[in-house]
Amino acid sequence: MRIGIDLGGTNLAYGLVDDQGAIVKRGNYPLQSYQTEYIVDLMLSIYNEYVADYEVEQIGIGVPGIVSQRDGVVITCVNLGWKQVPLMAQLSKKISCPITIGNDANAACVAETRFGSMRGYSDTVLLTLGTGVGSGLIAGGKLLTGRHGAGAEYGHVIVSEQGALCNCGNRGCLETFASATAIIRQYNTLYGDKVVADAKTVFDRYLEGDQNAIDTINWFSKYLAVGIVNLYNIFSPDVVALGGGVSKAFDIFAPLVRREIEQRIFCHDIAYGELVRAELDDAGIIGAAFLSDF
Amino acid sequence: MRIGIDLGGTNLAYGLVDDQGAIVKRGNYPLQSYQTEYIVDLMLSIYNEYVADYEVEQIGIGVPGIVSQRDGVVITCVNLGWKQVPLMAQLSKKISCPITIGNDANAACVAETRFGSMRGYSDTVLLTLGTGVGSGLIAGGKLLTGRHGAGAEYGHVIVSEQGALCNCGNRGCLETFASATAIIRQYNTLYGDKVVADAKTVFDRYLEGDQNAIDTINWFSKYLAVGIVNLYNIFSPDVVALGGGVSKAFDIFAPLVRREIEQRIFCHDIAYGELVRAELDDAGIIGAAFLSDF
Repeated sequence: MRIGIDLGGTNLAYGLVDDQGAIVKRGNYPLQSYQTEYIVDLMLSIYNEYVADYEVEQIGIGVPGIVSQRDGVVITCVNLGWKQVPLMAQLSKKISCPITIGNDANAACVAETRFGSMRGYSDTVLLTLGTGVGSGLIAGGKLLTGRHGAGAEYGHVIVSEQGALCNCGNRGCLETFASATAIIRQYNTLYGDKVVADAKTVFDRYLEGDQNAIDTINWFSKYLAVGIVNLYNIFSPDVVALGGGVSKAFDIFAPLVRREIEQRIFCHDIAYGELVRAELDDAGIIGAAFLSDF
Repeated sequence: MRIGIDLGGTNLAYGLVDDQGAIVKRGNYPLQSYQTEYIVDLMLSIYNEYVADYEVEQIGIGVPGIVSQRDGVVITCVNLGWKQVPLMAQLSKKISCPITIGNDANAACVAETRFGSMRGYSDTVLLTLGTGVGSGLIAGGKLLTGRHGAGAEYGHVIVSEQGALCNCGNRGCLETFASATAIIRQYNTLYGDKVVADAKTVFDRYLEGDQNAIDTINWFSKYLAVGIVNLYNIFSPDVVALGGGVSKAFDIFAPLVRREIEQRIFCHDIAYGELVRAELDDAGIIGAAFLSDF
């Protein structure tokens, strides 16, 4: 058995995961503080809760930020206000069990690759389209983690350097086109007023034939396609999965994205990987538990 | 000893390479035909030439196109007019020695990583800035080759989808900004006439204070920096090396590129890899010989 922990900005969700990726037990703590000591103690209590009844082989933790998976340091996590937090070092003092700490989207990519929409493949990409755009990339069966062990920040790939200003300070990052935030902003800009506060409403209006919604979803689909074409040109992955809240509208936008991809693909002599929808509800917990395998 | 073969559009350059990456013997054939049989026979004669006097452990071949390194099929090579050429199958009938066939920029990246400007690192990127932009990417010590075994076509990553039309049919590929062709085109456009036929002249005029040349090199440096920032955000490589003809002007443009990178980098809390100039004269031959190790 493994423990998977999904550390979010408001909650810490966790579970006991078996070898088939099924969650046997689960729990959730609302975060009352972002203090490292508090969060380390939460994790310790989870471990103690399970180790009393089960053989716990390892613990995996997904964090929404830049994390060096190699040494377990959270380099930066905006949601928690953390910078250079040596989480692994602090946990190791209290828990005598192998621990892996990684990025939450990397964890989700691991789960979808081992047990979900991308199972059976060795070259996979997950893009999580939510408030921002997260990403996990697996090449040859291993997570791409690079120099810092921190992995891909594909949401901050610049696809149009004349584009909108991103939170990161750059212009035209994929996140400024392909996130829920981007869809909401673009619709309200076209409408001329702040009339919409969530992406679902824009998709609903798209289905009703609202021209601003049609223009917004076409715009979103075009730039998401550019981002995915870039992935194909760089990695040629077996499969690209889309997760996050926006992916609930996958059936609406996927045909538009696929059409744009076909027009823009570099080489028409090879069959590119499929575009699919992520399928696991608890990819964060399950993937964290299996981070060490990738 | 290994044989390295660099198959170009006009010449086939080859050499006998020792374990330290030194070329012990070398040769060159101008191509008189692009017929597969002709080129296979050239390769056979190279093998026979060396195997008489040396113990040849393996043969590596770099091809300027999309090549499946897994099965040795040249999927497409524009320069030779090849499509779906099963080069490995044809060579194996005549040569009883392990053969590896890959992309030429991948080969150059292997050489620079094992013996050149990027030695000692496991996460490396080579961009060759010539008529086009080629690329090789090594992650965790292995070439990124993806679904088709074909590897990265980073020259066709879209950095500004409103940009100039690329040979590949897309707009705004890195190649439309960061190649010699792009520098020449941009200078002549700014000048209003076709006055320059090579990138070196533009760099010479830059040093003389020619305003059109200054604007051209600033433009080139900005978009090259966007492409490299994207690499950092995706891979966080240990080092990025620039090769190809344009890299002869590295000392001129590198400070401009580095300044743009610093402004655009996603995370200021981690030290990104260095930007260096490729240093091997025969990276194509040497790298081909060592393709099988990566």
